[in-house]
Amino acid sequence: MHWTEYFGYIGAFLSAVTFMPQVWLAWKTKSVGDLSLGMLSIVFISVVVWLVYAFALGLLPVIIANTIVGVLAIILLYFKFTFPKK
Amino acid sequence: MHWTEYFGYIGAFLSAVTFMPQVWLAWKTKSVGDLSLGMLSIVFISVVVWLVYAFALGLLPVIIANTIVGVLAIILLYFKFTFPKK
Repeated sequence: MHWTEYFGYIGAFLSAVTFMPQVWLAWKTKSVGDLSLGMLSIVFISVVVWLVYAFALGLLPVIIANTIVGVLAIILLYFKFTFPKK
Repeated sequence: MHWTEYFGYIGAFLSAVTFMPQVWLAWKTKSVGDLSLGMLSIVFISVVVWLVYAFALGLLPVIIANTIVGVLAIILLYFKFTFPKK
């Protein structure tokens, strides 16, 4: 495997887990007031776009990474709409 | 241009601007307590990894998108360290 491929896989892994600490913090504090709904919406829409692209081209790492990001984005959107505002 | 390319460009554009609404909200409220430092750190590290990958392979859209995300991540990290805690 060429060394650039390792960077691609590390990048895909990091991008996939980006929102895990955010979901954890939000769940622990039950506070999402400072989280931008615009940001979460863009993340969700971009996941849909990337999934169409990746399924069409059969890019498995992109499919896996975006599926994980999509699930985390849906969790954060659910928190945003259900946690009481402070 | 094949239709999948359009999805790639739309996805890259959306990913690039993901944190713009978050920077705007944080700047407006001067409040970033609910933002996960872990998330911001992962975003920054992943940008560095993606830039190495993209420069090595000459992937201009990936370079442009990650440069924008990197600048926005640095701004949010700066806010996180300088805005007073509530």
